[in-house]
Amino acid sequence: MSAFPPATHDVFALDQLLTDEEKEIKYRTRAFMEREVAPIIADYWERAEFPHELVPKLAKLRLGGATLKGNGCPGQSLVGAAMAVIEIARVDGSMSTFLMVHNSLAMLTIGLLGSEEQKTQLLPRMATLESVAAWALTEPSNGSDASALTTSAKKVEGGWELNGKKRWIGNATFAEWIVIWARRADTGDVNAFLVKKGTPGLQTRKIENKIALRCVQNADIRLESCWVPDSARLPGVNSFKDTNVVLAISRIMVAWQPVGLAMGVYDMANRYLRQREQFGNPLAAYQINQEKLQRMLGNIQAMTLMAWRLSKLYEQGKLDHATSAMTKAWNTLRGREVMALGRELLGGNGVVSDFLVAKSFNDMEAIFTYEGTYEVNALVAGRQATGIAAFKALPKKGKKQSTADLAMAGQSPNPKDQQ
Amino acid sequence: MSAFPPATHDVFALDQLLTDEEKEIKYRTRAFMEREVAPIIADYWERAEFPHELVPKLAKLRLGGATLKGNGCPGQSLVGAAMAVIEIARVDGSMSTFLMVHNSLAMLTIGLLGSEEQKTQLLPRMATLESVAAWALTEPSNGSDASALTTSAKKVEGGWELNGKKRWIGNATFAEWIVIWARRADTGDVNAFLVKKGTPGLQTRKIENKIALRCVQNADIRLESCWVPDSARLPGVNSFKDTNVVLAISRIMVAWQPVGLAMGVYDMANRYLRQREQFGNPLAAYQINQEKLQRMLGNIQAMTLMAWRLSKLYEQGKLDHATSAMTKAWNTLRGREVMALGRELLGGNGVVSDFLVAKSFNDMEAIFTYEGTYEVNALVAGRQATGIAAFKALPKKGKKQSTADLAMAGQSPNPKDQQ
Amino acid sequence: MSAFPPATHDVFALDQLLTDEEKEIKYRTRAFMEREVAPIIADYWERAEFPHELVPKLAKLRLGGATLKGNGCPGQSLVGAAMAVIEIARVDGSMSTFLMVHNSLAMLTIGLLGSEEQKTQLLPRMATLESVAAWALTEPSNGSDASALTTSAKKVEGGWELNGKKRWIGNATFAEWIVIWARRADTGDVNAFLVKKGTPGLQTRKIENKIALRCVQNADIRLESCWVPDSARLPGVNSFKDTNVVLAISRIMVAWQPVGLAMGVYDMANRYLRQREQFGNPLAAYQINQEKLQRMLGNIQAMTLMAWRLSKLYEQGKLDHATSAMTKAWNTLRGREVMALGRELLGGNGVVSDFLVAKSFNDMEAIFTYEGTYEVNALVAGRQATGIAAFKALPKKGKKQSTADLAMAGQSPNPKDQQ
Amino acid sequence: MSAFPPATHDVFALDQLLTDEEKEIKYRTRAFMEREVAPIIADYWERAEFPHELVPKLAKLRLGGATLKGNGCPGQSLVGAAMAVIEIARVDGSMSTFLMVHNSLAMLTIGLLGSEEQKTQLLPRMATLESVAAWALTEPSNGSDASALTTSAKKVEGGWELNGKKRWIGNATFAEWIVIWARRADTGDVNAFLVKKGTPGLQTRKIENKIALRCVQNADIRLESCWVPDSARLPGVNSFKDTNVVLAISRIMVAWQPVGLAMGVYDMANRYLRQREQFGNPLAAYQINQEKLQRMLGNIQAMTLMAWRLSKLYEQGKLDHATSAMTKAWNTLRGREVMALGRELLGGNGVVSDFLVAKSFNDMEAIFTYEGTYEVNALVAGRQATGIAAFKALPKKGKKQSTADLAMAGQSPNPKDQQ
Repeated sequence: MSAFPPATHDVFALDQLLTDEEKEIKYRTRAFMEREVAPIIADYWERAEFPHELVPKLAKLRLGGATLKGNGCPGQSLVGAAMAVIEIARVDGSMSTFLMVHNSLAMLTIGLLGSEEQKTQLLPRMATLESVAAWALTEPSNGSDASALTTSAKKVEGGWELNGKKRWIGNATFAEWIVIWARRADTGDVNAFLVKKGTPGLQTRKIENKIALRCVQNADIRLESCWVPDSARLPGVNSFKDTNVVLAISRIMVAWQPVGLAMGVYDMANRYLRQREQFGNPLAAYQINQEKLQRMLGNIQAMTLMAWRLSKLYEQGKLDHATSAMTKAWNTLRGREVMALGRELLGGNGVVSDFLVAKSFNDMEAIFTYEGTYEVNALVAGRQATGIAAFKALPKKGKKQSTADLAMAGQSPNPKDQQ
Repeated sequence: MSAFPPATHDVFALDQLLTDEEKEIKYRTRAFMEREVAPIIADYWERAEFPHELVPKLAKLRLGGATLKGNGCPGQSLVGAAMAVIEIARVDGSMSTFLMVHNSLAMLTIGLLGSEEQKTQLLPRMATLESVAAWALTEPSNGSDASALTTSAKKVEGGWELNGKKRWIGNATFAEWIVIWARRADTGDVNAFLVKKGTPGLQTRKIENKIALRCVQNADIRLESCWVPDSARLPGVNSFKDTNVVLAISRIMVAWQPVGLAMGVYDMANRYLRQREQFGNPLAAYQINQEKLQRMLGNIQAMTLMAWRLSKLYEQGKLDHATSAMTKAWNTLRGREVMALGRELLGGNGVVSDFLVAKSFNDMEAIFTYEGTYEVNALVAGRQATGIAAFKALPKKGKKQSTADLAMAGQSPNPKDQQ
Repeated sequence: MSAFPPATHDVFALDQLLTDEEKEIKYRTRAFMEREVAPIIADYWERAEFPHELVPKLAKLRLGGATLKGNGCPGQSLVGAAMAVIEIARVDGSMSTFLMVHNSLAMLTIGLLGSEEQKTQLLPRMATLESVAAWALTEPSNGSDASALTTSAKKVEGGWELNGKKRWIGNATFAEWIVIWARRADTGDVNAFLVKKGTPGLQTRKIENKIALRCVQNADIRLESCWVPDSARLPGVNSFKDTNVVLAISRIMVAWQPVGLAMGVYDMANRYLRQREQFGNPLAAYQINQEKLQRMLGNIQAMTLMAWRLSKLYEQGKLDHATSAMTKAWNTLRGREVMALGRELLGGNGVVSDFLVAKSFNDMEAIFTYEGTYEVNALVAGRQATGIAAFKALPKKGKKQSTADLAMAGQSPNPKDQQ
Repeated sequence: MSAFPPATHDVFALDQLLTDEEKEIKYRTRAFMEREVAPIIADYWERAEFPHELVPKLAKLRLGGATLKGNGCPGQSLVGAAMAVIEIARVDGSMSTFLMVHNSLAMLTIGLLGSEEQKTQLLPRMATLESVAAWALTEPSNGSDASALTTSAKKVEGGWELNGKKRWIGNATFAEWIVIWARRADTGDVNAFLVKKGTPGLQTRKIENKIALRCVQNADIRLESCWVPDSARLPGVNSFKDTNVVLAISRIMVAWQPVGLAMGVYDMANRYLRQREQFGNPLAAYQINQEKLQRMLGNIQAMTLMAWRLSKLYEQGKLDHATSAMTKAWNTLRGREVMALGRELLGGNGVVSDFLVAKSFNDMEAIFTYEGTYEVNALVAGRQATGIAAFKALPKKGKKQSTADLAMAGQSPNPKDQQ
């Protein structure tokens, strides 16, 4: 298991669909991941610790900021950013999620919805990973139904007082800055605030005993009379629907993650089958194993093309939320199949995370469920296909659909949020 | 059920990936199929009859010859030809197979491997469908293992004498010309011959009681001392491997067929769910149904992109046989899932072929199995991924792989065939 | 294909769980089906005709009346009746449904809910199949939601006038008697009536173009001012909930049907794989095929035990509707998997109904959907597991569940029906 | 999460199929597991440590020795022993495997194949768990192909010298006694030896970084000139086929393990869905969730009946190896489906092992793979169904099957082993 296996998954010549810059990001990231991360990551995963030692090395890859331009950010194309995501996820899902939270949720929110001052002050150090960021939307009682958030922001002298709970917030135990989404006590509108590590009233507690993305430090957050200055408020956020501009990109990145996980598991399984012998032949010689390998390979091509097409539609300004939801759901469904196949192809060694397959098998479960569970994304897409929202109570006949039925995944029930 | 439902399946904007000409073929074919074929085809399917009345109308669509150029053929791009395939299959699988046998097996063989005289004489009338063609490779005892064919061609005075049996030969009961693949008695090499309807010694018998592609007239063929002149031999065919140049294209077309079937079934199911009410709401309002609809929709996008990418690789001369096999297998696997989902979404009406869904549900089974079963295609692709052929006896350790292990799906065990 | 293959599916020694009488029914039925039905049924299925020639022969098997006692009926145990069901379905699904409609819907309704006079007059000739019966509950607009039936029965001088439509009524085109479920115009209660073939105002029209159970003659029924005498009313039926006593048994029989279909398809596939060779070995020698065969075999054992346990709970008076629904849904889900596996194992011959596998592949689709679709049965069972009905509009918080939510699968929304 | 949820999975009234003693074992074990193990086990699992604190408490349950009689063993019926297995596995898979290794592999081998002296000396303290045992068959290079074991036993003065490697040996890091399977240097026959903890030349090293059954301490074992006295040899073992008498029982117990895991996950998921609300309703109110819950419930009934029937056939002396293999494979296949469904039903909380579902989701993977992978068991069963072994090289035509083809899963290629 010393060396990560060579890439054998790309039978559809993905490079043909990439610009030179995108290819460069891909191979630069791959080399780093295979060399620096693959040999050490299983132990961190086992101990559920974040590999802080890797951050300075990762910084040199210049991936911080991803699609943002200026303030030290690289201004990658969307597909370029995706190439980094898949190559990281190919070796390790946790690192991929760590960077996605930092880049495509937290930095992106600041970059798109922050003030010039906020951008100038925060983004350059974030781009170099000197400062790591987190992003806090989900609450203990509001997972799928994120728009029902109840964390409150009360206007007080010179700033805001935040109260409430957040859950599942990645990077939050050590991040320097956390973007907190809260509902204004006066208007009921959703706003966002930058809260610095160590601010009185902010407590983070690591969620223990995870089976998936174990290196990602997810936190339960408690805000108790947590005061932040006026300058902490992101001026671009005035309602829940402002999450959409960020989630539109992050969901695409999440749709790419299973692609990367699947590529890595395929490459591992392919090498393993050729090296391991039983009954006098390499495992690769057996029909049952070949069929599984091919099903994995087909899924990978399809998942790649799905995420690629999604990205292209976004770049053209033609992507809607429903199509994005469908693709995220579909890619995780097929990705999960790839993980299960890879896990079983490795037999007993498939339950040992040293081979990285067992690790990805678990990591996929988190991705299947976050940024909208498979089911919620299916229903978001289903609403568009049918014109009927099925998340909750169905409309009685003859009554027009209540706004409440739209309260999910980026569409607030609050009428003000929908103007 | 009077009108075929509007197309609602294309959430990934396939048109963006097409040339104007390809789009034109697509919409021209769609209009014809919805208007002329959809209203009448269920009855033909039920009676297992070929709709001869449609041939003159179909001729006006100018699809005969597909990718061939000259001799009256339209010289479509590969993707353009595929657009015709999916739009025909969207309404009816049988018509799609009828035309694929005629265009992408029989005419293609003549166009690529025939003499100038054969081309000049036969292709123009075939391009206008005045003359329909068939293509006979498979034998009763050799389905998956086509290269083991035993039909013989013996050189005799002024021509050849053909003896043997063929099975599953589409269009053969009424085709004017049948391309017969046979093994030369003298050299053992595989050759191909054009046999005209009514030639003494040629008998065709329709295969009855099919559940799939019921309008396609598949025949059992018997050749008994069937004499054909020297001019009937296709000069471009000198070994079994010459099938490859034809199968390379026809397999791509077969990979497109499930895409078309799936599109039609989705469009049907989507309309049905919105129109049919139970328990006080349209069926489209129920979660279980929406999830199925979305799974179908995701599959369709992925299948489309898979077949599209395959076609593009072919156009660049970069497609290998294994990738083609993988894609055909994968697309039929997912296509079968779409059929099952569509069938169950229609409830009781899903077992009545008038709604066209039940028909496609069955038609997919033939496509899953022909031009290499799912399993054989998976093993063809698996051989490339692993370097080991697993079709038959595994090599003993230390022995190099026998050529016999390569005897399938277009690779003959006959050493002469592999030069 | 001349002879039906020997039974090789019973690795769990089902006979051990049977009484001598039940075993006798099983083997008597098996012998008949293999000898008389298997050789001729594919042609009837293809032509979508009912094999009337078999009725006198079937009569000699003495299966008419099944679990009913007296009036010429054999008084089989529930498991004994089930043995007939599986052995018939093993060879032909249509015959199994024909008899189930006659025995476990129509005769059972008369036997359990009819007057002494009705029983004495009708059952003896029905037990000998001289008189065939049908049972009409489903309506064009009410499939899953059967309790919403709108066919009306108006009290008139000396009898009742029936008006309305029924759909999917098996045997109805030729049955001598049809049990019609209708709603009384005066009280809104559901009643049942015996309507004789040829009664003025009764029209039946065969549903054409079915892909499944093609020998079963399902009809669309139209009742227009159809007068029946007072004696035609079944005195035991006073509300919709009275369907339950019949459906409790028929649903068990439907849960057995997939068992029989699966056994037959397994036996066929097992023989086929051992007889057919490709690549120099019998198909049975290939790993991919063996795995499929074993998955089929495991499913069959499980399906058998599920239906057996269900029957035993019924015999003890401990079976509830939800468990029955769960079992029917589960057995058809697994049965469908067996059909798909069998179909693909037969390759090209799997799309030809002569091999009987293609036929069963289709027949299963009807069973998956009738007597409650898979989904409706899952939700019936889900209601019991969770205490919440999810068929239609969800209850608003704080509001108690409306009776309307119970209106399905044997539970009427009409309060009177629930006393 | 304080209390384990009540059992809601038993809709088929399993108790009816049990003797009073079997029921007593079931409820005694359940009470213990819910009270003593459920509250503390997630932390042990997370730390991959064995909960030694539980052993004295477990001892009081009097489960040690299971089906063995005498020497302090309880002489449970096979089904009684199975009830302990499922109730332990319902709360924790690791504890279930710990006890199965101790009872149904190690103690059983001593009890069935040991000398009177060995039994008298070892079994009583093992029955009280004062002495824990392990069982070492698998080797690093021989997993599926266990009969190819190469660990050697050389006859030396007064005893035997053992050399070789073992892998995956559960309990071995702390067990007092390990049963070592080795091949005699003189005859090539397989023998078994009792090796005590601390014997010079015996090294055990814990396998780290497992995702499944993390509390079970699996070891890599190295035997280097490890001397044991003549009295250490089990006199009842004279060839590889003597493993069969033990594996016949242990495989049944392994077939029961997924049943227990599935029951626990169902009970957890059922409670969770009713308690957790999103979009204004409990998750249990949503159709998509109810369907999953029902699929789980159906699988559990079927898996239970499969394992029960298997046990009954064994008790009657009518069980063959192939049926056992089929059942183990089938139960783990369905069990895996139940785990995946349970995991996704818990959403984000499904990736946290505190809820026990995430833990079982992983534990199932080990069971899917050990005691014969799914695939190897399918092929063992397939060999019986078809008469052809497909594990390795296929027989050339006309050659009779080599004994080598039988060398798996308890059938040695060594002719002496097959007498």
